[in-house]
Amino acid sequence: MVEGVHFRLSEGWATPAEVGHRALAGALSDLAAMGAQAGEAYLLLGLPAGFDEGAALELVRGANALAAQTGTTIAGGDVVSAPVLTVAFTVVGWAQSEQELIGRDGARPGDLVGVTGALGAAGVALAVLEGRVTETAGTEAAMARARRPVPRLLEGRALAAAGAHAMIDLSDGLASDAAHIGRAGGVALRVELEALPLQEGVALVSAELGIPPWQLAASSGEDYELCVCVSAQDAERAQQAVAAAGEVSLTWVGRVEEGAPGVALTDAAGEVVSLAGFEHRW
Amino acid sequence: MVEGVHFRLSEGWATPAEVGHRALAGALSDLAAMGAQAGEAYLLLGLPAGFDEGAALELVRGANALAAQTGTTIAGGDVVSAPVLTVAFTVVGWAQSEQELIGRDGARPGDLVGVTGALGAAGVALAVLEGRVTETAGTEAAMARARRPVPRLLEGRALAAAGAHAMIDLSDGLASDAAHIGRAGGVALRVELEALPLQEGVALVSAELGIPPWQLAASSGEDYELCVCVSAQDAERAQQAVAAAGEVSLTWVGRVEEGAPGVALTDAAGEVVSLAGFEHRW
Repeated sequence: MVEGVHFRLSEGWATPAEVGHRALAGALSDLAAMGAQAGEAYLLLGLPAGFDEGAALELVRGANALAAQTGTTIAGGDVVSAPVLTVAFTVVGWAQSEQELIGRDGARPGDLVGVTGALGAAGVALAVLEGRVTETAGTEAAMARARRPVPRLLEGRALAAAGAHAMIDLSDGLASDAAHIGRAGGVALRVELEALPLQEGVALVSAELGIPPWQLAASSGEDYELCVCVSAQDAERAQQAVAAAGEVSLTWVGRVEEGAPGVALTDAAGEVVSLAGFEHRW
Repeated sequence: MVEGVHFRLSEGWATPAEVGHRALAGALSDLAAMGAQAGEAYLLLGLPAGFDEGAALELVRGANALAAQTGTTIAGGDVVSAPVLTVAFTVVGWAQSEQELIGRDGARPGDLVGVTGALGAAGVALAVLEGRVTETAGTEAAMARARRPVPRLLEGRALAAAGAHAMIDLSDGLASDAAHIGRAGGVALRVELEALPLQEGVALVSAELGIPPWQLAASSGEDYELCVCVSAQDAERAQQAVAAAGEVSLTWVGRVEEGAPGVALTDAAGEVVSLAGFEHRW
């Protein structure tokens, strides 16, 4: 994560502790999407001239707290000079065997497409921080989640054990990330936008922006929820596995079909909708 | 390694392939200094706007070639946008047991201090590239070494197996790095500057600069040779182990004493010499 590219420190955008948390969360989220168990993390910290030592230590404390929560060991790293704050976590995950791990490429026609948790927290935060909407009590929960996203490690392992065919974490937004699964598997994912589970605050903010709630939810990067493809016969098992693993549920949002590899997003009428040009980064 | 901090790409300073090689070499050198076996490497590549895709691939090929030479597996990584070219390798090393690994903190009074190979290649290269001396046939070997330094992985493992008490790789220059061993062990290293093994070209360049050769050799960063402390009774075993491991030899350059933790550099008359203020980065 590079200052000015992946985060801003100025004017309340992110505290150093949040930057540390988010950098580690983003790396762990990739392990979650494979169904791997988190192992060791290594931190490369690039500090610009004049960056306060106290802030650097706060950043590391933010990462340490998430490491403790997730059973990750921060086992090493390095600190160098850099023109802007640069925070790179390398994480190593483990499984008993390669067969336990899930890739992006196994989706099959007939599979159901599911997402964990609720979507749109990062999109709400971006709109608030850019001053496009008002910060209210209704956006607090989304802001808190966006500042410290939770990698879905337990849910990822549960889904892998429940027979998931393909999985990806939502770091760029469902519209982009689901397309990766479609292309990797040579299949067409059909996602019903009205079925997307919405983070609290998404309806409020999208109303103020004058856009449909699903637009925010489908294009919200760095939510770090999981998108998974599961055979119809394993669907109930997968849903129970996620419920048993933690605090979020699995929602079915679409289906895998034969067709042009990628994703098609459909509205309530079943018409394909384009999200092109909608900004997802915060 | 960050452009403008650890390397320059402009005007023949370093090719992308050399940057890739050097970033991986610097990381592997830390494993060498512990006596670890190289395992997996993970690459974080931060590319500035407009950085040529061909150059990025050349960088990776440069690293891949060193990985193949050293038995390292480049097992993953990420590519992001960054304001300047940023190349961070995380390497994981392995040993059969923790006891096989050597730290910086085990030097004992009476130990001999040795260095592998020859010192000063990076110092010669810096002087040439900054235009402070003339590039001649006499500086070619040093330039080649500085462009593609070799991490002393085999020598490090051989020294660990031969009973080394403390070890460090020379990334900042012997004067700085030996001081780390002294401080970590609470002992005083006494290094005889006239005993330093000189890279071919160091005598030539130091004569042109009007400085003693040892000044270049002791302050040359990124040589990536090893500095090791060994008991007097293990000295011959250590020397044979290095000779058997590869292509360089081990030279004794000093001794560990009780005293103020750190390093004292002494001239031919036994007087302590200061190297403060001498630039070692290239």
